[in-house]
Amino acid sequence: MAGNSFGQVFRITTFGESHGEAIGVIIDGCPPNIVIDLDFIQAELDKRKPGQSKITTQRKESDTVKILSGVFEGKTTGTPLAMLIPNEDQRSKDYMHIQDKYRPSHADYTYQTKYGIRDYRGGGRSSARETAARVAAGAIAKSYLQQLGIAIFAHVSAVGDIQAPNLGDLSIPELITIREQNIVRCADPATANQMIAFIDAVRKDGDTVGGIISTVIRGVPVGLGEPVFDKLHADLGKAMLSINAVHGFEYGSGFEGASMRGSAHNDLFINPDHKAQSLKTRTNFSGGIQGGISNGMDINFRVAFKPVATLMKAQMTINTSGDETEITGKGRHDPCVVPRAVAIVEAMAALVIVDHYLRNLTIGDSESNLLKTLS
Amino acid sequence: MAGNSFGQVFRITTFGESHGEAIGVIIDGCPPNIVIDLDFIQAELDKRKPGQSKITTQRKESDTVKILSGVFEGKTTGTPLAMLIPNEDQRSKDYMHIQDKYRPSHADYTYQTKYGIRDYRGGGRSSARETAARVAAGAIAKSYLQQLGIAIFAHVSAVGDIQAPNLGDLSIPELITIREQNIVRCADPATANQMIAFIDAVRKDGDTVGGIISTVIRGVPVGLGEPVFDKLHADLGKAMLSINAVHGFEYGSGFEGASMRGSAHNDLFINPDHKAQSLKTRTNFSGGIQGGISNGMDINFRVAFKPVATLMKAQMTINTSGDETEITGKGRHDPCVVPRAVAIVEAMAALVIVDHYLRNLTIGDSESNLLKTLS
Amino acid sequence: MAGNSFGQVFRITTFGESHGEAIGVIIDGCPPNIVIDLDFIQAELDKRKPGQSKITTQRKESDTVKILSGVFEGKTTGTPLAMLIPNEDQRSKDYMHIQDKYRPSHADYTYQTKYGIRDYRGGGRSSARETAARVAAGAIAKSYLQQLGIAIFAHVSAVGDIQAPNLGDLSIPELITIREQNIVRCADPATANQMIAFIDAVRKDGDTVGGIISTVIRGVPVGLGEPVFDKLHADLGKAMLSINAVHGFEYGSGFEGASMRGSAHNDLFINPDHKAQSLKTRTNFSGGIQGGISNGMDINFRVAFKPVATLMKAQMTINTSGDETEITGKGRHDPCVVPRAVAIVEAMAALVIVDHYLRNLTIGDSESNLLKTLS
Amino acid sequence: MAGNSFGQVFRITTFGESHGEAIGVIIDGCPPNIVIDLDFIQAELDKRKPGQSKITTQRKESDTVKILSGVFEGKTTGTPLAMLIPNEDQRSKDYMHIQDKYRPSHADYTYQTKYGIRDYRGGGRSSARETAARVAAGAIAKSYLQQLGIAIFAHVSAVGDIQAPNLGDLSIPELITIREQNIVRCADPATANQMIAFIDAVRKDGDTVGGIISTVIRGVPVGLGEPVFDKLHADLGKAMLSINAVHGFEYGSGFEGASMRGSAHNDLFINPDHKAQSLKTRTNFSGGIQGGISNGMDINFRVAFKPVATLMKAQMTINTSGDETEITGKGRHDPCVVPRAVAIVEAMAALVIVDHYLRNLTIGDSESNLLKTLS
Repeated sequence: MAGNSFGQVFRITTFGESHGEAIGVIIDGCPPNIVIDLDFIQAELDKRKPGQSKITTQRKESDTVKILSGVFEGKTTGTPLAMLIPNEDQRSKDYMHIQDKYRPSHADYTYQTKYGIRDYRGGGRSSARETAARVAAGAIAKSYLQQLGIAIFAHVSAVGDIQAPNLGDLSIPELITIREQNIVRCADPATANQMIAFIDAVRKDGDTVGGIISTVIRGVPVGLGEPVFDKLHADLGKAMLSINAVHGFEYGSGFEGASMRGSAHNDLFINPDHKAQSLKTRTNFSGGIQGGISNGMDINFRVAFKPVATLMKAQMTINTSGDETEITGKGRHDPCVVPRAVAIVEAMAALVIVDHYLRNLTIGDSESNLLKTLS
Repeated sequence: MAGNSFGQVFRITTFGESHGEAIGVIIDGCPPNIVIDLDFIQAELDKRKPGQSKITTQRKESDTVKILSGVFEGKTTGTPLAMLIPNEDQRSKDYMHIQDKYRPSHADYTYQTKYGIRDYRGGGRSSARETAARVAAGAIAKSYLQQLGIAIFAHVSAVGDIQAPNLGDLSIPELITIREQNIVRCADPATANQMIAFIDAVRKDGDTVGGIISTVIRGVPVGLGEPVFDKLHADLGKAMLSINAVHGFEYGSGFEGASMRGSAHNDLFINPDHKAQSLKTRTNFSGGIQGGISNGMDINFRVAFKPVATLMKAQMTINTSGDETEITGKGRHDPCVVPRAVAIVEAMAALVIVDHYLRNLTIGDSESNLLKTLS
Repeated sequence: MAGNSFGQVFRITTFGESHGEAIGVIIDGCPPNIVIDLDFIQAELDKRKPGQSKITTQRKESDTVKILSGVFEGKTTGTPLAMLIPNEDQRSKDYMHIQDKYRPSHADYTYQTKYGIRDYRGGGRSSARETAARVAAGAIAKSYLQQLGIAIFAHVSAVGDIQAPNLGDLSIPELITIREQNIVRCADPATANQMIAFIDAVRKDGDTVGGIISTVIRGVPVGLGEPVFDKLHADLGKAMLSINAVHGFEYGSGFEGASMRGSAHNDLFINPDHKAQSLKTRTNFSGGIQGGISNGMDINFRVAFKPVATLMKAQMTINTSGDETEITGKGRHDPCVVPRAVAIVEAMAALVIVDHYLRNLTIGDSESNLLKTLS
Repeated sequence: MAGNSFGQVFRITTFGESHGEAIGVIIDGCPPNIVIDLDFIQAELDKRKPGQSKITTQRKESDTVKILSGVFEGKTTGTPLAMLIPNEDQRSKDYMHIQDKYRPSHADYTYQTKYGIRDYRGGGRSSARETAARVAAGAIAKSYLQQLGIAIFAHVSAVGDIQAPNLGDLSIPELITIREQNIVRCADPATANQMIAFIDAVRKDGDTVGGIISTVIRGVPVGLGEPVFDKLHADLGKAMLSINAVHGFEYGSGFEGASMRGSAHNDLFINPDHKAQSLKTRTNFSGGIQGGISNGMDINFRVAFKPVATLMKAQMTINTSGDETEITGKGRHDPCVVPRAVAIVEAMAALVIVDHYLRNLTIGDSESNLLKTLS
């Protein structure tokens, strides 16, 4: 009800404030016997952690994760898997100046009005620091997806007006390798260089800029997603829109599809493998999802992030007494969130896919499900 | 789990197939003592019903709704409110030709593979006919919102490449009046005429086209929406993406915001009323939502619909045996869904807002909540 | 939230008032490809329906069920299965005399105070008539359990101070045959005769009496039930306590177990089949459930029903203005509910077992789960 | 789904194994602005903690709780409140002897078969140590109930065949004082002495014994509880049955009510205060709940606990290979759990009442609800 849980079967609940003792997450419904690789979880967190390059915030958090329960002798047990990430470099005094001011385009005013109280230090619960807990949980989800042959890849496809070209026919491991060779996490090296230079210039202005992350998911079997309200793309959309600063989500043909004709947009079925149970489509304007259910083609979607609200320049605002005042960002902030948000987008996508994979098992031992298992 | 319910407190569950006996909906958690106006519910359904103009499908359904429970002497009782809409003009024989064919960009293949069985008549459960049940439930939600002083307005802002200009400063009742004066449901009469001519031409081609619906919600108090996963815009996004044919959702600055700088994008607070509890912002790139919580400004968002998949021309496809075959739409279909989808978008928006209004009451009798009640 | 749904995966939502248009139920999450036998569903409803013998209410309802959705060509499709039972013999005028009186030990006062409105006719939503919808849904659940080799048997084991002896080693089909040969639904014919005579005498007094229903469930595989809060017996307990008039639930050794010593109470494991995956226990004080999870032994529990509150004699009470008044039962009422409640207890048990069976599938394709499938 | 969460609005999720790093709990949906008293939380935990007297296990755990989030400057903020209790005195080697043996009437066999893996140390997740997390969460719930004027009292009313007499007319603070003066936590001092002597004798035998806990809740307003499935007593029943070793639950007249006549059982309404909104009943066989909804009278119920399964004597059992073997309890165990379980019963009761209090707020600003607030 209060909105700190996500997922139906593979269900995570996160907790913690930016400048409290720790943040963390419980996964309830994690299948047993998944091999847990702490190094992999940590590597995922490192992609999101602050202070990793000149174009991210300089806050220094090692984001070291500790597993408190649910794992025995290196494997999950099916019981709740709790993970804890202590807060280290808090510098709460950086936030004393906002104790009684509402930062523009932040959640200070809405939290204060909703709850009548707020932890103003670093945004408290509204801080994107909460997403580290999602990345930790997403790493467990990815470990399970890997067993199932499902892979996820996200990268920065736009910063400001700079847009990456479409990706070619590379495999996901190849794409990841290219992406991790630049600090902006774009899979096109030439575009990456432009983006980095642009973000650096914006940062020197004391300003910030938005961007877009594009994602592809490969190897999803036919049949994931529930008709009507819990369509696979509806749950992916909600997952992405729940990430701080996200203002838009589209899948397949997206907003461009709205201007197309049906005769150009329809994805014609083909049967290259001559198996009635695993068709392909000639095009993929459906983005791998038809009627809310995966059709076995690549799932793809794009997520739009607004520019970071904290600026290193003076802005007018209102204080908690209702009077006008001036505010200037202190502390350490990102000029552009998308390089670090790539890990968050992948984590949320992994959580949605695992959850729908497990939900789909509840259809039971139908003939069709058995066929899928045996094939 | 199986995805036919929506909402946490004001929770609807829909049922029914396109060519079954009836479709319907149960609302659980409807507050007591709401006055029920059957004429209003019917009028909402009439905006969505087929056969209403030359640019919609010619299937004739009166979509007459019947309330089975939860209302006593004209008022809701707090018990489950069940509504039934019988199917009348079914012509199931129009669908015999697709019994063993997978229609391109429809849900036939994914349903068959997921469940091992499907009601192929008219798309069965995957038919947009299901959304009539949502509109009926949305009408109850709107009745409650009206008591609270909250109003919702959606209209067709784009069809193909034809886009409506921004709306001026009209009130929502004025906007509704203008919109209902044309069959495409665009609030700009000149644009509406272009859209109608274009859709009619597309229809004569045997083709279809997509479009965009834009929405504004006024009068929402500060504080609706839950932080983290159930952000108000995340739930609005999921609601919209759960509507048949929707491929994209954006709110506030949306995808355009991704290319903006923070200094241009930030919504500076102002206090025209000199009340610390009800600030305004100079601009509204936040779309009325900050940190996932309503800030009292207009909530606005845009929804992209792909073109209808059923064409009145021949297309190649695959049958259930895996062989190539040809298919041509029979029956009665929409060349463009957005005119009828306006009612669905408004209904889903109403359901989200009512649900979050009631969820927010669970914060309890905090000083801040009492203040809101008394103000 | 509002409490009209039950189950997590196989989830039912009921609606309807005693004297409204109809009552009904939606099952969401029903697996596809279950063969539906309408005669079986009707036969289950007939065991609960009013007017079936001299010791039940004389209200005449055929309780004829109609399936509105979710079934195609005789099989479930995996989409919501809606069932409707019209109300026929309503005689609402029998209830005009209680319009402004609170019946003792009924829900009139609590509903009125909670909601500020109530449908006073026949108890409205608080009427046990609602349980007909549960029996209809339970019949679908039983059809699925039969496929899985799981059988449920309940019977009246006590009425007033008359108690049935323990059942011998009969099979469930044999037990059902014996039970259905008497109108009180006790599987011991001699005790049944005493019970019937006693209830009839109580009825002639214008009085009512309580009773106990005992249940056994056979064929449940090891592993159903979730640790901690959703223990199998906790969900069975809630299911039973949600039935009108139930005041107590115990399983296995129950309240008697509280006075026993561990050395007498422990169920020692044995391995008659020499298979490490399917142990038995020498005794069954655990009632087939250990640590909240089924252990493969018979599950058994007992449910206590208080006497019916409506008496055919005058009682003092208070009216809605707060003044003293007299009330006498009119209409047609049961002197003892347990004979009709047997069908309700079995239905709720079936719903719990099916739900936990499907929930258990979400553990995933663990080695242990595959072993279970193959064994 | 996996069953480690409880509650709908005030929702707790617990984690942790008996011999892991720590156990803990997240409360999501905790109202803001509740004053948090760490000493009170710790005092509640101390009533449940091991090693507190000669009739409890000698395991030494300080059960020191740490709040990680959701509290700012001594008050709750409305964000998730996470609490951690590190495990200290683990002595896991005490459990090496059961690594490959299934302890009788424990959860070893069912966990192993369900998950294909288990943390065998101290019962892992099936250990009653998990309930410490519930007590911590219950202490927060109690803090909120105190603000609302609601008080809960539980005590040991039976051990073996020794039963306490009915309590007189003492206030809840007086009852607590008396109860805490003896180590068995019975509110009748003479009975307490008998119980203590009996448990001590059983302990010296290497045996264990069961018992009963009786509870009363005072000050609950009329209107809590949801009709149909989430009746207040059904949720209390599930809460109690989810506690380790509980085999039975009854409220009001309970199992005795099954043998009563309606004319003796009905609770006649009276109106001593001459206020139509707050009636009383002459008797209270309804246990404070009618139609699943609180009626303003004392809520009372009884919970039966089976004897502890771990004995300090040899028992025959089966090992994980399916062979017969002998087992003898090592480590430190309770001869009778009820003295420590009093705190758990009160905690679970508090969680249910707070949850239903907050759920009831979602009825909205109905006239009746406003009346209740103003009265």
